[in-house]
Amino acid sequence: MQYLEDLEVGTETYFGSYEVTREEVLEFAGKYDPQPFHLDDDAAAATHFGRIAASGWHTAAMVMAVIARNVVAKGQAGLGSPGIDELRWLKPVYPGDTLHVRGTIIDKRESRSKPDIGIFRTKTTVTNQDDVPVMTFISNVLTRRRPAAD
Amino acid sequence: MQYLEDLEVGTETYFGSYEVTREEVLEFAGKYDPQPFHLDDDAAAATHFGRIAASGWHTAAMVMAVIARNVVAKGQAGLGSPGIDELRWLKPVYPGDTLHVRGTIIDKRESRSKPDIGIFRTKTTVTNQDDVPVMTFISNVLTRRRPAAD
Repeated sequence: MQYLEDLEVGTETYFGSYEVTREEVLEFAGKYDPQPFHLDDDAAAATHFGRIAASGWHTAAMVMAVIARNVVAKGQAGLGSPGIDELRWLKPVYPGDTLHVRGTIIDKRESRSKPDIGIFRTKTTVTNQDDVPVMTFISNVLTRRRPAAD
Repeated sequence: MQYLEDLEVGTETYFGSYEVTREEVLEFAGKYDPQPFHLDDDAAAATHFGRIAASGWHTAAMVMAVIARNVVAKGQAGLGSPGIDELRWLKPVYPGDTLHVRGTIIDKRESRSKPDIGIFRTKTTVTNQDDVPVMTFISNVLTRRRPAAD
């Protein structure tokens, strides 16, 4: 188990990558974000996207997939997130892109009200195969503190 | 078509509702957020969630589904979003919940660099069937301005 005490402020972690497929972009958009530039080649061509682009919420979900695989593999004692700040979709994400996900721990502290819980903040940066940043955000994450008996 | 000029600051819109199913919560979590409290009854029971809760990114996607249906139905000349601020997951979202989505336009302005484009900000509030707010966020949205010929 990885607890609050094991997290070091300033550490940058490479979480891994995610291949963006046309099939998945269309499936997600059809279900959750059916705006024409996410679903239709001609409609997308008429916008600044130029061609079908992934829903920004889909990009967020793909990025979470990469992060969550790591969290689960490391047995990080995470307890979910109360929120996200400054989420920026900097550039379109297209089918065929490969997303690379990195996170840096910005700060951490003990909970004021719950002695067994801590909170830390990370800045996540997502780049594509050309090393162009496509998305950034700051997450607030709850995690367990190391039990006294350990 | 609904353009920047047609949007009124201060207007609150009820966008509609979304039924959260256990099947969809498990499917999304399995694909994008496989943390135990989104997937496993016993693991969730051992956390502050109490039982399986939807991934926050899944809640965001379901909310986008409700908003996007409206945007597409109204023919809103939206051009995507450069980002989100102050996204807060206030309370867990559980299978069986019904989400209600409301948005208020906070401000709007013309683009400084592109005369045919405007940007507006909305505050989205998501409540459950008990009228408890479960999620809020502020979206920045790009939209077309009314062409001069209209």
